[in-house]
Formats: sequence, structure tokens, C-alpha cells
Amino acid sequence: MVSNSGKVTTPRHRIVVVGAGFGGLETVYRLAGASADITLIDRRNHHLFQPLLYQVATASLATSEIAWPIRHLLSSRKEVTTLLATVTGVNTEARHVALEDGSTLPYDTLVLATGVRHAYFGHDEWEPFAPGLKTLEDATTIRRRILYAFERAERESDPQRRAAYLTFVIVGAGPTGVELAGTIAEMAHVTLPPDFRNIDTRTARVVLIEAGPRVLAGFAEDLSAYAQRSLEELGVEVVLNQAVSDCSADGVICGGKQLASRTIIWAAGVRASPAAEWLGVPLDRAGRVIVTPDLTVPGHPEIFAIGDTVSVNDPEGKPVPGIAPAAKQQGRYVAQVIKARLSGDKAPGPFQYKHDGSLAQIGKRRAVIDFGWIKLRGSIAWWIWGIAHIYFLIGVRNRLSVAISWLWIYTRDQRSARLITQGRGAMEPKKPG
Amino acid sequence: MVSNSGKVTTPRHRIVVVGAGFGGLETVYRLAGASADITLIDRRNHHLFQPLLYQVATASLATSEIAWPIRHLLSSRKEVTTLLATVTGVNTEARHVALEDGSTLPYDTLVLATGVRHAYFGHDEWEPFAPGLKTLEDATTIRRRILYAFERAERESDPQRRAAYLTFVIVGAGPTGVELAGTIAEMAHVTLPPDFRNIDTRTARVVLIEAGPRVLAGFAEDLSAYAQRSLEELGVEVVLNQAVSDCSADGVICGGKQLASRTIIWAAGVRASPAAEWLGVPLDRAGRVIVTPDLTVPGHPEIFAIGDTVSVNDPEGKPVPGIAPAAKQQGRYVAQVIKARLSGDKAPGPFQYKHDGSLAQIGKRRAVIDFGWIKLRGSIAWWIWGIAHIYFLIGVRNRLSVAISWLWIYTRDQRSARLITQGRGAMEPKKPG
Repeated sequence: MVSNSGKVTTPRHRIVVVGAGFGGLETVYRLAGASADITLIDRRNHHLFQPLLYQVATASLATSEIAWPIRHLLSSRKEVTTLLATVTGVNTEARHVALEDGSTLPYDTLVLATGVRHAYFGHDEWEPFAPGLKTLEDATTIRRRILYAFERAERESDPQRRAAYLTFVIVGAGPTGVELAGTIAEMAHVTLPPDFRNIDTRTARVVLIEAGPRVLAGFAEDLSAYAQRSLEELGVEVVLNQAVSDCSADGVICGGKQLASRTIIWAAGVRASPAAEWLGVPLDRAGRVIVTPDLTVPGHPEIFAIGDTVSVNDPEGKPVPGIAPAAKQQGRYVAQVIKARLSGDKAPGPFQYKHDGSLAQIGKRRAVIDFGWIKLRGSIAWWIWGIAHIYFLIGVRNRLSVAISWLWIYTRDQRSARLITQGRGAMEPKKPG
Repeated sequence: MVSNSGKVTTPRHRIVVVGAGFGGLETVYRLAGASADITLIDRRNHHLFQPLLYQVATASLATSEIAWPIRHLLSSRKEVTTLLATVTGVNTEARHVALEDGSTLPYDTLVLATGVRHAYFGHDEWEPFAPGLKTLEDATTIRRRILYAFERAERESDPQRRAAYLTFVIVGAGPTGVELAGTIAEMAHVTLPPDFRNIDTRTARVVLIEAGPRVLAGFAEDLSAYAQRSLEELGVEVVLNQAVSDCSADGVICGGKQLASRTIIWAAGVRASPAAEWLGVPLDRAGRVIVTPDLTVPGHPEIFAIGDTVSVNDPEGKPVPGIAPAAKQQGRYVAQVIKARLSGDKAPGPFQYKHDGSLAQIGKRRAVIDFGWIKLRGSIAWWIWGIAHIYFLIGVRNRLSVAISWLWIYTRDQRSARLITQGRGAMEPKKPG
């Protein structure tokens, strides 16, 4: 290529990153200084701090406290273009991604970091009755349903129907399920009682159903036991070794028995985004791309896939978990590999996941942390959990804002984001047919 | 009535207040100590600080910073029951209000404070293309459209279509229209330029269209002139003496000319809620109930109507404006009248509106305040505007939170709530047919 000045220039290397979650954003951050033009595509305009999404769903935080406009995060990086667009496919021959509007975007290197959606194990018809928690809209939907259930109970005179409005079922006892159950129980027992006249919100049932033998299966067994005790002290009913066999507007069927509930939340399973289908490469049972040890797609050294959308093992052969730190480590690694290729340096060895620890909050002054080498619980774990989450938020403003929100929740039992928003028609699941 | 202890008791007086805006909420606050059972009905679960709603629409504040759960505001008032319900009518004979679910609620005294919606002067078909600003959903809809227009412009290669995405039309130059226009111009000129690559957001056109001869018609003429100059300095095109004759997905027709725009905001007119229709009493052109000097409905001394939903004159014969302080004064007055009746004291004289002043913010360090006896503009007015608004927010937490948000906006040009949320289908107005 010959530029206006007559100098021969080579075209800049084009990197396309799909998905601005923890993995995709970290890739772009770490590509700073690379001699390449980068395009970051996401179908949302914001990066979301998913570990605190359950706090939006439970009226503790505002949406804007855990979400940032992607293009603003990259405003100083003039070689990065941010695109609000939905990717519909990848043409690996022509090396371009296809966008929903019919246009295409060519790449020299492609990084797929497209994440997961919640999945219903072949029962997608449950979704209207048991929303999952992955997006801001999911969170405001769940918030609306929880708050509306208390409102309906306040007006309901029939004791059975009132009880169904005051029964909250959470399916799946991983960190999200545990955190939701604990927070809903705290709302019912601490935040809401003074505000209602006809109901005692402390009579609300919060039922956490888990198909496996313990809550927080990813943590050490004694921490699981502590978490279960803590949940029970908060008033949560923990049901283990029971799978849900049906979800409807009337409640769930669990262990053959009907549990009447108007509010079901799904925290049980995820399925990877369709990246593997775009590529036509082997995928695992959860729809994840099986990548090589350098996180490239088999047969396509120019295509990387990272984060929740891939299946990869750590050096000990254990699967890398689908958590934010893992996605960030992968993003960092991929940026290293790409920079090494561009500069002609020696590529780093295979990706090695380092597990820093697992954290989950159960309630006020109750949390568990499993660092592997040390296990923490109770107050000390809760403080570390809080400080770590504030640390990992982006920007002083949001840190300050979340800290103030938490101060009000934990010293004054006030949850500031108790808003029922969006159309009334959407407030409640409709009975089918 | 004979109670369990054998003592003869009279049934408590039942007061029903419909609407928890500034008027209804103030009525309930000021009824504290009255010997009555009070029910406050609203179809939303939150009280909204409408004067700052335009800041949610322009990504400056989060929804939860200007909205509070109604029942929480009244949690200490055990004689007050809060009901999330939609009123569909009033039976003045039987003295009950009818609710959407078919139930009825009896009253001895009724206070209607049901507010207004934006109105299109007989052109309701314009609403999908020109949303108005009255609810939190209206605000997030407008926010989504503004932000999405910049995103679409960034991807658009056709110069005409790009220009249409970068043209923002605000219809109506009252305080809301002026504040929206000024803030959108600031976003385009100050907040957004570093974040985009393909467009210069400073080329965006912000057009404020007013059918009357000046902006802020409720203010003194020199303040109107100052506001117009300030808007023009911010880059707003002010079009006066021109009515909009059509709104569509393509833009507006104004003064016979088509102005291509993908984002139209309606700030031109309101119509009262159907309270007058429920009562079958005379209403004015804007659908407002014409009340007696003690704010009761003619022929019904037991029914009060206040706030935006009524038409009433001040002692000088001028109509009381539809602003928050007027609604609050009316709520205070009505509570006085009801308490005097209940206690057998002498009722106060007719309602006398006292105009404290008019405020409008135009942009950073630009505002106008018309106290009548003194007129302020510029920096000093802006500081008073800010302090007054923070003062009138409810609770320390929200004051702190809004103060921090404004600190970031005015010192760092960051607007934290730049979130495009809700289904993609709702992002853009559809072309009809």
C-alpha cells in the first residue's frame, strides 16, 4: 500500500474482539501498544460487573452502579473502535464476522468472548416462569417480580394465594443462587416488615433447591456446610438432592411434590453462546468450544476463544471455572500471544489457569472465601468479600457509590433501589393458554 | 360499634388518597395525628422526583436516585396503608373508589391527586415517535433513544441518514424542554466526543421548537432572553413561533418544512388524568377538574382534588401553575381542612397559592431563577438551583448520591448512567406499516 506521502506502508493488522465482558475487555486492555487496529463488538452498550448483578435483582444497587458504557472505558485508546452490534456468524474462509444488519467486518485475528446464557436443560418453556440472571434486564425483571409479589400478597385475602405470593423459589445453589436466597431472606426479615400492614413479610418462605448434595459445590465441604447453616439461620429452606421437574405460573414440582410459588428464579445452569456453531467446530455438552492449550480454535490459529464460551483445563487437568478471574486471565494470555506474534517475539507457553479463590456472600456479615491454602468464613470473609468487590469495580465514582449503598443497607436496613419499573403487563408471569 | 372490651367505639374516619406524587404524599404527611385511617393508592410503587426526571433521560442520574418506594416513606405511620393499585373510577353515591381488579375501597373523605400525562393535542399517533417525559420508563426510553442514535450514527455511512441520527428535536420550550435541550447539547459537545471514532458528536444538531414567542414563557422576559442566548451558546438551535404539524419516524414537519430526525422528544403539552371523568364534573380544556376555592369538587364537599389534576386560580386570579410546590401547598391545605373538620375546629379560609419562584437549569453553571422580587441568572442561579434540588430530595443517602453524580458530571464530564437497556426491539421507533 502506498500512502499519500509516497511511503510504502503495510496495512495494519486487524483484530476483532467479540464480547465486552471480563474476557473481551481484558484482551483489549492488554493489547495496548500492539501495532493493530482493534474493533470491540458487543450487542450491549455496557460492560457489566456480573458478580454483583444479584444485588440489582434484590434492590440493593442501581443498574448504573455495576455497568459502564464500553466505549467510554476505551475512549483514550484511539486505535480501538467500539461497535454496538450483534454478531450472527463467522466466515472462517473469508475471515470476516457477519453482523445482524447484513454487513461484514474483516479480521486478521479474531477473539471470541461471547459468554453464556442461562439454560433450562431442554426445558426452555420454563423461562417465562423462572427467569435467569445474566443481564441488567434480567436483574430488573427479577427485582420487579420479587417486589411485586410482596405487593400482591399485601392485597390478597385468600390465604393460599397469599402464601404462594410469599414463597420464593431459587433453583440452583451455586454462588448466585446462594446470594439471591440469602438476600431475599434478609429483605423479607429485615428490610420490609415495617412497610407492610396486612402481611408479615417475615412469614415469607425462601426455598433454595439444589439437585446436588450440597450448596456451593465449588467450595470446600466445611464452607458448604457453614453456608447452609447461615442460610438456614437467615430463614432460607435448603432442599438438597432434589431436581425440579416442572416450572409453571403456579410454582415448581420438586421431588414429585408441588410447591406453590409465584416467584421462581433460575440459577441452575448455563449454556454457551453460539460461538461454536458459528465456527462449526467440536463443542462440549454445555455448547462450549473445545480450544487448544493456547486458547485457539482447532485448525484456526488466528481465532481465539476465551471465558465462559470455552472448555479448557487447568494444568492439573481440572476444568477452568466460568468465573470473572478466569476470563480475565485468558484475556491477558491471549493479548500476550497476539502481541508476541505481531512483534515476532517468542510466543508464551500454553495457558495456565491460576485459581485465586472463590468468594460468596450469604448475608450481612456472612460470607465464605476458599483460597485453597486458607478458608475463611463469617465476618472476616464478609469484609474481604466487600472490599474485594469494591476494588474490582471500575472507577472511583462507582466504588464510592456502591460503598454508600452498602453502608445504608448494612447500617440502616434500607435498600434504595426498590423500584417496580416497566409495563404492568410484564409484572407477572401469565398463565399459559 | 362495640369493641371486645365492651366500650362503645365509633368507626374511624376513612380517608382515601389517590396518587402519591407531590400533592398526594404531602396530604398524607400533613394528616399525621388526624384521627383517621388513611389509604394511599398509586399505580406505581414509587414516588418520583419529577423535576430531575430529565437528568435520568440524559444519563446523568440513576433511576433510584430520584425515586423512593412509597410504602417505605410511610413505614412509621401505622394508620397509613399503601396500596399498589390502579383506580378505574369513583362511585360518588356509594362513596367508594373502584380498582382495576374489580374490588372497591370505601371512603369518607377522598383526595384525588392523580396528576397529568403528556398530551399530543389530538395527535396521539405521534407518541411512538415523540415520547414524553412523565415516568421513569419514559426517562429510560428517552435515554435509550438518545444513546442509541449516537451508536447508529457511528455505524452509518450514508451522510443523510447519519445526519438524521445526529439530529435531536425537542418540542416545547418550557423548563423540561429547555433542560433537555441544554443537557443533550452538553452531552454531544462535552461528554461524548472522546468516545466515538467515526463521527464527531459535536456536529449533532439539537433543535428546540416552540410554538410561542419565547422560551420559558413562565419566567420574566429578560430571563427568557438569557436562557435562549445560553442555549444557543451551548449549540442548541432555538426555533420560535413555529408549531410542529407532524411527527413520524423520519422526523418532524415544522413551519411546513421537513426536519429529518430519528430522535424527537415531546415536552409540549399535558392532559390531566381522568379524575374529572370519574366524577362526571365540569373540566377545563386540558381535562382538569374545576374545583371550588377550598379545593373540593363542586357538589361534593367530601372530595378534594389537588395538583396538576385541577384548575384553580391564585388570589390574583391567575391560574396556579402545575409545579411541585403548588401541589405540595394544596396537599398541606387539604390536610388542614380535613383535620379541622375531624376535630370540629374552624376550617381555614380558601386556598391561597403563594408562588415561591421558578427555576430552570440550562447547562453547567447556567440557570435562571425568577423569584418575582429578584431575578437571578448564570453561576449564582445554577448553584442555588443545585442546592435547592438536593435539599428537596428525600433522605441523606439520595442527596449524597446525587451530589456525587453531579460532582462527576461537572468536574469530569462523566455521565454515569449511559445505559441502553430493555429489548432491542424497543430501541428504535418502527416505521409505521
